[in-house]
Amino acid sequence: MTAIIEPRLPRGMRDILPQKMLQRRYVIGVVERVFERFGFEPLQTPVLELQQTLSGKYGPDAEKLIYDARHREGKEDLALRYDLSVPLSRVVAMNPELVKPFKRYQIAPVWRAERPQKGRYREFFQCDADIVGTSSMLADAEIVAMIFTILRELGFKEFVTKLNNRQVLTALGEYSGVAPALLPGLYRSLDKLEKIGRDGVRAEMLKNEIPDETAKKVLDLTELPVADLNAWREKFREYPIGIQGINELEELVQFAREMGVQAERLQIDLTMVRGLEYYTGPIFETVVTEPKIGSLTGGGRYDGLVGLFSKNSLPATGTSLGIERIIDVMDELNMFPANLPKTVVDVFVTVFDVARRATSLAIAMSLREAGLDAEVWYDFDGLGKQLRYAAARGIPYVVIVGPDEAAANVVTLRDLKTGEQIQVTRGEVANVLKKKIERA
Amino acid sequence: MTAIIEPRLPRGMRDILPQKMLQRRYVIGVVERVFERFGFEPLQTPVLELQQTLSGKYGPDAEKLIYDARHREGKEDLALRYDLSVPLSRVVAMNPELVKPFKRYQIAPVWRAERPQKGRYREFFQCDADIVGTSSMLADAEIVAMIFTILRELGFKEFVTKLNNRQVLTALGEYSGVAPALLPGLYRSLDKLEKIGRDGVRAEMLKNEIPDETAKKVLDLTELPVADLNAWREKFREYPIGIQGINELEELVQFAREMGVQAERLQIDLTMVRGLEYYTGPIFETVVTEPKIGSLTGGGRYDGLVGLFSKNSLPATGTSLGIERIIDVMDELNMFPANLPKTVVDVFVTVFDVARRATSLAIAMSLREAGLDAEVWYDFDGLGKQLRYAAARGIPYVVIVGPDEAAANVVTLRDLKTGEQIQVTRGEVANVLKKKIERA
Repeated sequence: MTAIIEPRLPRGMRDILPQKMLQRRYVIGVVERVFERFGFEPLQTPVLELQQTLSGKYGPDAEKLIYDARHREGKEDLALRYDLSVPLSRVVAMNPELVKPFKRYQIAPVWRAERPQKGRYREFFQCDADIVGTSSMLADAEIVAMIFTILRELGFKEFVTKLNNRQVLTALGEYSGVAPALLPGLYRSLDKLEKIGRDGVRAEMLKNEIPDETAKKVLDLTELPVADLNAWREKFREYPIGIQGINELEELVQFAREMGVQAERLQIDLTMVRGLEYYTGPIFETVVTEPKIGSLTGGGRYDGLVGLFSKNSLPATGTSLGIERIIDVMDELNMFPANLPKTVVDVFVTVFDVARRATSLAIAMSLREAGLDAEVWYDFDGLGKQLRYAAARGIPYVVIVGPDEAAANVVTLRDLKTGEQIQVTRGEVANVLKKKIERA
Repeated sequence: MTAIIEPRLPRGMRDILPQKMLQRRYVIGVVERVFERFGFEPLQTPVLELQQTLSGKYGPDAEKLIYDARHREGKEDLALRYDLSVPLSRVVAMNPELVKPFKRYQIAPVWRAERPQKGRYREFFQCDADIVGTSSMLADAEIVAMIFTILRELGFKEFVTKLNNRQVLTALGEYSGVAPALLPGLYRSLDKLEKIGRDGVRAEMLKNEIPDETAKKVLDLTELPVADLNAWREKFREYPIGIQGINELEELVQFAREMGVQAERLQIDLTMVRGLEYYTGPIFETVVTEPKIGSLTGGGRYDGLVGLFSKNSLPATGTSLGIERIIDVMDELNMFPANLPKTVVDVFVTVFDVARRATSLAIAMSLREAGLDAEVWYDFDGLGKQLRYAAARGIPYVVIVGPDEAAANVVTLRDLKTGEQIQVTRGEVANVLKKKIERA
């Protein structure tokens, strides 16, 4: 005999056992249905991509988190996908015949070797919906409206989407006069404004070699009231890219409102920066404010990504929902529907003894034929053990066929929650059960 | 600007574009529903496993096909899963609290670097259903009955499951008197009996260093009529493991018949060998005979696998459906339902002009609210271009709101297939559409 191998998971990864899978499936089901109601089509791409497809897209810090892969006798340098936007851009470049605008969604795992912590995993599902082939702010607005629909249907009460535009950030960089090499530090510092305040950001900028005078100039700008976009336009007079960014944001807000999004749910935040390097236009991040659980999803416009793979560049915008955090939060806050079952199984069919086995099997098969999820006992154990099994599994109903029942061509149907028992004919049992389950 | 990176897929991998995804989802939906009707629960395991979890499980030829993975700054030796049974065994060993029998299904990709060819991919989905914790042949029979249910519901007409038992093969090895080192060659040769005939197998065995006399002895044995299992029991008198194997097969057939499987669909084939090394008991392979497309699915009992990860060994049996081949075959043979849509989108809402944009957006949102999958045009193009788009996408219905319609608070609803147009009030359009779609 070989020695026992300790059964272990890779760091930061996990199994999802059946009961949790039912929660997960519920959330993914809601997301998928909303994506489709908004006209997005499913797409599947392989987990493995060529390394050259991923490299240079996410920035150097992100790139360190990529998992490489290689077939033991193969020559290709492969990597596990890091997100779903770069693979989408590759697909669009490879399939020019796709009708545009191309709206697709993909709900699939991605891999990032971040430091594991509560709620953060190295393999996690992203739910992405993107629109490729239009520069219209209607597309961005639709993404924002869709996120609201999803959060509302999942049961979140209060949330707000912060909006910014990469073009505004670019203008802000130009306005600051900082050398290009220092810009990433400027943006990173600015992104912390809400968390660490003006003085904190100023100190952070100094650490990033940005002169204090420049820091002050940028921070003064950010204190302009967001409500007064004309004041920003005035400041950006010499930086037309900033004015374009402001105009796009204004348009985006107007379109989102025309789609029924309430004004108070949209918040322009001209200091918000989002991590991924490929964004070029509006960026958005949705924060759940009641209960206060922070950012659940983000996205933005990335008009340059397809162009990295094809001479025919195409504008694109989209969102990525972090499903793992949503599931964790909903579990903690008891937000799942009360009738979400513990098991897929509707009914457990006991096997009374050897002589009655064939009858039990036939009943289980007829319940399945009728569309019910039925389990049957495999061995010959006392009824007590079988009922304990069904109870431990959380199966709601049990069918018992003893000698008396078999002789009378009936079965006993027991409700394991209430203990209530009724006798029904074999012909009726499927319909009786279906009605009980519908009512539950 | 950086140079354009040629957009390419890794060898043997592919994207699945939306229309194909709808076929795929249909097949996976049928499989998933039948799995659940038979009482299997969903499970998710990570794509990456520790190399030590996979190594030594599949045999040396298979092991060469594994993809290794590693985080760029990480220390763990990882690999992409090769099947779903070894991860299941790891899960069961790590979670002793799981109620037994534990019935789970998993529909997920696995990776094998086989030589790519038509219908064979290096990333492919397996649909696995397994039962852990019972030695009862009822469990094996249930797996066989379930496979039949799936194939029938997918529309396959004629199919047969070949059954053998690894214990019979072990007895056959003992009976042959061949040295253990030569046994794999013996089995591999024997497995080709149906393809290359008696003489072919004899030549093959000679090549595998098996004496001709032994080859003759084994081949004579395989010519015993399968219908007469007593003759086999007689030959295996001194090899009790063979008799046990025969008894199990007899029991399995009886149980499957009690579950409603027709006798002619079960075929005992005592020369069938299945590749994976971990099988220990009954093994099965289902072949579609009309149309003649060969093996679509296989499985078997593997009572030793959990024991490699835990002192508490547990018996297990299950099946693995090769979904890619099923989808390809159904596509070739036109087996998908005639009403399977080309797109998820039910209705396309045109945007007549800037003044009517807000109305179109509101209508699209109200259709979505009503549960319909609706798309709206993002730009301001002529109606002709918008209708051509909807037609190219295969969207069945279009909503048009021009100045006349807007004034009368109605919309024009056009059926793109028939060209038929009706006017309905804005309040009615969702219900009218739902009825049309139901009827289609």
